[in-house]
Amino acid sequence: MGRLSELFAPDAVAVVGATDREGAVGRAILENLRADFAGEVIPINPNRESVLGLECYPDVESAPPFDLAVVVVPPPAVLDALSEIAEAGTKNVVVITAGFSETGEEGARRERELRELAEAHGLNVVGPNSLGAMSTPVGLNATFGPENAREGSISFMSQSGAFITAVLDWANEQGIGFRDVVSLGNKSVLDETDFVRHWGDDPDTDVVIGYLESIDEGDEFVRVAREVSDETPIVVVKSGRTSAGAQAASSHTGAIAGSERAYEAGLEQAGVLRAQSVQELFDYARALSGLPEPDSDGVAVVTNAGGPGVLTTDAIGDSSLEMASFTDETLEALEESMPAEANIYNPIDAIGDADVERFGEALDLALGDDNVGSAVVVAAPTAVLSYDELAETVIEKREKHDTPVVTSLMGGARARAAEEILREFGIPNYFDPSRAVSGLDALARYREIRERAVEEPETFDVDRERAREILARAERRPDNRLGIESMDLLEAYGIPTPAGEVVDDPADAREVAEGIEGDVVMKIVSPDISHKSDIGGVKVGVADEDVYDAYEDLVSRARSYQPNATILGVQVQELLDLEESTETIVGVNRDPQFGPLLLFGLGGIFVEILEDTSVRVAPIGENEGRAMVDEIQAAPLLRGARGREPADVDAVVETIQRLSQLVTDFPAILELDVNPLVAGPDGARAIDLRLTVDTEEL
Amino acid sequence: MGRLSELFAPDAVAVVGATDREGAVGRAILENLRADFAGEVIPINPNRESVLGLECYPDVESAPPFDLAVVVVPPPAVLDALSEIAEAGTKNVVVITAGFSETGEEGARRERELRELAEAHGLNVVGPNSLGAMSTPVGLNATFGPENAREGSISFMSQSGAFITAVLDWANEQGIGFRDVVSLGNKSVLDETDFVRHWGDDPDTDVVIGYLESIDEGDEFVRVAREVSDETPIVVVKSGRTSAGAQAASSHTGAIAGSERAYEAGLEQAGVLRAQSVQELFDYARALSGLPEPDSDGVAVVTNAGGPGVLTTDAIGDSSLEMASFTDETLEALEESMPAEANIYNPIDAIGDADVERFGEALDLALGDDNVGSAVVVAAPTAVLSYDELAETVIEKREKHDTPVVTSLMGGARARAAEEILREFGIPNYFDPSRAVSGLDALARYREIRERAVEEPETFDVDRERAREILARAERRPDNRLGIESMDLLEAYGIPTPAGEVVDDPADAREVAEGIEGDVVMKIVSPDISHKSDIGGVKVGVADEDVYDAYEDLVSRARSYQPNATILGVQVQELLDLEESTETIVGVNRDPQFGPLLLFGLGGIFVEILEDTSVRVAPIGENEGRAMVDEIQAAPLLRGARGREPADVDAVVETIQRLSQLVTDFPAILELDVNPLVAGPDGARAIDLRLTVDTEEL
Repeated sequence: MGRLSELFAPDAVAVVGATDREGAVGRAILENLRADFAGEVIPINPNRESVLGLECYPDVESAPPFDLAVVVVPPPAVLDALSEIAEAGTKNVVVITAGFSETGEEGARRERELRELAEAHGLNVVGPNSLGAMSTPVGLNATFGPENAREGSISFMSQSGAFITAVLDWANEQGIGFRDVVSLGNKSVLDETDFVRHWGDDPDTDVVIGYLESIDEGDEFVRVAREVSDETPIVVVKSGRTSAGAQAASSHTGAIAGSERAYEAGLEQAGVLRAQSVQELFDYARALSGLPEPDSDGVAVVTNAGGPGVLTTDAIGDSSLEMASFTDETLEALEESMPAEANIYNPIDAIGDADVERFGEALDLALGDDNVGSAVVVAAPTAVLSYDELAETVIEKREKHDTPVVTSLMGGARARAAEEILREFGIPNYFDPSRAVSGLDALARYREIRERAVEEPETFDVDRERAREILARAERRPDNRLGIESMDLLEAYGIPTPAGEVVDDPADAREVAEGIEGDVVMKIVSPDISHKSDIGGVKVGVADEDVYDAYEDLVSRARSYQPNATILGVQVQELLDLEESTETIVGVNRDPQFGPLLLFGLGGIFVEILEDTSVRVAPIGENEGRAMVDEIQAAPLLRGARGREPADVDAVVETIQRLSQLVTDFPAILELDVNPLVAGPDGARAIDLRLTVDTEEL
Repeated sequence: MGRLSELFAPDAVAVVGATDREGAVGRAILENLRADFAGEVIPINPNRESVLGLECYPDVESAPPFDLAVVVVPPPAVLDALSEIAEAGTKNVVVITAGFSETGEEGARRERELRELAEAHGLNVVGPNSLGAMSTPVGLNATFGPENAREGSISFMSQSGAFITAVLDWANEQGIGFRDVVSLGNKSVLDETDFVRHWGDDPDTDVVIGYLESIDEGDEFVRVAREVSDETPIVVVKSGRTSAGAQAASSHTGAIAGSERAYEAGLEQAGVLRAQSVQELFDYARALSGLPEPDSDGVAVVTNAGGPGVLTTDAIGDSSLEMASFTDETLEALEESMPAEANIYNPIDAIGDADVERFGEALDLALGDDNVGSAVVVAAPTAVLSYDELAETVIEKREKHDTPVVTSLMGGARARAAEEILREFGIPNYFDPSRAVSGLDALARYREIRERAVEEPETFDVDRERAREILARAERRPDNRLGIESMDLLEAYGIPTPAGEVVDDPADAREVAEGIEGDVVMKIVSPDISHKSDIGGVKVGVADEDVYDAYEDLVSRARSYQPNATILGVQVQELLDLEESTETIVGVNRDPQFGPLLLFGLGGIFVEILEDTSVRVAPIGENEGRAMVDEIQAAPLLRGARGREPADVDAVVETIQRLSQLVTDFPAILELDVNPLVAGPDGARAIDLRLTVDTEEL
């Protein structure tokens, strides 16, 4: 697959299936292309000599050379058209035609063939079932949808063509411009990852935004987006967030629904800013495309009205930002220049009779303060204040200090002209101050993304071969599950477990117990009994002399509970002092899009009732492992709350990392639970284990 | 204080301090009044014979009768003006003049005098420091601020005059109308509660909205708003929500900051819908003023575009609403009338070539479904769809079915005309579907408020006199605190405590212990030692024969820990079986605005680390007590999660109610903690108690 630059900046575009038939898609595309496109437009249709005044060619072979093809022929003719295009040496194709995987069995087959054909010829295919693509620098509108976009620096991809149509109509009215726009369609060949990668390399794209209903190869997306987001912010509305929405999305695109928690974790790890609504998507995009990066999270608020100042302060309190504390110099200067009734502490209230000059002075002083990373100018209309002049002043101060400023010049008609002036200079203005703050918040959150170190996962020295052998035991289990008898899997990956062994004879049990200091814990080992405690299958604190009888008792209880259960024996395990320890859980699930998903939480009610867990896509670095521990609500319990000795959090983090390595090394592990992982002051030890293996993947 | 109807519908308005001086507030008010007011306008100024062409009177006495006075004289002249107005028999006054409590000591004194004067004469005073008041039915604009408002059914109060100016300018552009508008100013006499009460009685006010920075008498507000919200929705932005915002608000209005949790609980109990931002305030208000009440929470979505349909579904998932499940009849009818490729399940996707007729048919069928309480029409622009016609169809179906419908006809310029048509019929249209849903959500939440039964607090038979005696003991304590020695306070209010007694002699201790079955718990009783366990001041499971020694040991530990501590003795208490029980906490704090605030949570980490608590303003009914238990995250632990026997939740709820009664009966109780209240299968018992008493209030 070649680079995508030609897709968005072709010299010549062929429309395969061009027509002048009123209402036809082939006509709409041709009209849109003719409107502004700087290059050549070549209609191809065997039944026409000319279309809309352009010379028409009967087939690809006879047409002059072109570097982008737009295909609008009926579904059964698409594959032939693609072959011809490939033969002509063109690499970039937009398939508008619908009737592929979105329509059932036959369409799905056709789409598989399309993908194979594209792979064989190295074609960059957008679609099928796409609205098309646009690129404003060359006036390219290769869609059958809307009028052309305004020029700008936002590149926009969407899994819904209708969403593009709606957004462009609105954005043109709002004065929001775009660089490239692409309707992803069925994402048969090119998907979100390809466009993120391309726009990441494009110096003229300042922000990448997307409407996505699914991310097909989550792990690849995370890898690419993480790199791109170092330089270029990515903002995504991933719809189907709620269970109702996910159901609607799957019936819309037929996408397999991955779990929302996987998307949440994956997008976060990828450095993607996630917007919850269309409004938020564009509030973020406007700020990120128009304003410089703030140096710090401190925000100054300058206003002529107390109430709106308080509203703005609340919005800052809700965000990841904070109200800046002014330095003494700033306060002195403000005191000198503001009237006595003004409030010079942040929010600066220059009071109701403030004119543009006073506003400008306050803003100038605030932006000059080292503690101020950005500012919000909030104004209510008064007789002495011209919004248009205020806009000019704001622009001047913003440029002078090279610091982001947003505005909420509150009002209706009287704010419109000022709004346009501000927009020209990248400053978004909103009636609601909280939307202005939301833009600044996006800047701050993106700065955090850029600043955070992405650590490569540590590679521990492990016994991979032994692990493979242990996993292979699952072949002998009808349900492909392994349990506590496979604790040596953890040992092979360097995860500490208590001393102990699984034995299938009471005398052996006694021997093992004698080799362990103090009393022991004994547990029935059976792949068919998952809740051992419930059936009395666990005995805690058994003295050596009682081990023999305890063995027999455990086995007979298990037999009477479930006569046909396979009983592998009894585990005899060192008894840990749980007084000073905390039970934690580390789990792994495999998400269809993102792969192995790590989960951490405290045991018992914390996971089961309070659902207090953290999640990451594996593999993770040490910092992500530490973040998993830190972000659960109950984390203080591990850190020594309420007079307890702190647990060895490093050991917990290392265990999570080692498990991350294990499930990354073995895609065959479908599910895995270490429950509990007991964390005490002297380390963490895994006490019990359950996993499911896809033995065909081994 | 008389009724407020005359304030908003006067026959004649006098402007005391009217002038024609350019830029003066007294001129601005006169100009605004002259613009549209249906009644008579009477300027009063001793230095003018006429003002702006109106005959001017030297003083109130010589002026013709008026039923509303607007006062704009300098601060020192305000009180005299008010006296004259009162003498003339006028009851309603708007004091525009600033320079009262917002400006320091002298102003505060002047404001106290103003309040006394108003009380003495029964004056309804708005302000001082008010922008003024408006009422559109009579064209009254008695403000020095904005142009007049459009006529509508929303009545609007604001603690910020600038906010009114900003909102009205914007609302006029947005086509949002108002009935009455009032700038509350310093709320010296009339406050939010008075206006809520007045508008609750006003048949022409459909919605009450407010911007508030403080609520002065929270308990009164809750009582009044709860009644009004049965008939009229109340939506409030209470700013100063965040700690940064609260600080800004207190420096703006000098209002004493009550706790945010008290506001949250109080507004919720008052049936007030709380908006987080200006945008939300008006999104809620528009829906509540223009649309009928939905019959159920089921929402139908009708769209021509999959992606926007999914976005809308997500927004519904985020809200208190749910996607409606269509009946079989509806599905059959949809199947018949929609094309094969359409999705007939909710969201209905009538697909891209849907014209107005198909949209209308789908909407008609959806609204006819019994499971549908409201609908969202979401459209992307297409060549075959006229938004204007779609708007007409939506209006027609909405009225036919008398069911709320909101729209998101997505687009820019092309949606504007349709938007205006829809607005005329009360249907809000937004580019972002989630804002449309937010309006429906407000309708559903208001319906819930109307439907919920407000229970009168139960009055238990208690020994109030005895409680008073016990509380009076605090007079003898230098810090006015009582502790475990006052458990009989709880007994006086019928709250069960374990058997036991406080004794000051080891022999007595033994005697008490012998009267209690089984071992006992012994605790040092000292008002100076609050963390008894930390100093070894608690012994659990003491046998009768060890009680004597244990007594001495406890006392000597306490003495060595804190030699000058007052030691009241030792409590000897029945040992409860805590295995099957759960420790809970019931606490009370007194909020400056709302009074006693009840708090409930589980003991230990749940309150201290997870902050898992529920809060209500006392007094509460049984249903609120139950809700307090239900809404903590850890509630399942009380209900028998993880195989435990369920605790007697009824007993916990009753204890909360009885404590509610106790702190309501005795405003002298400033703080009270029952910690723990042990809840087991056979009831709840209070084990320990601490409280602080304002003995002057007894």
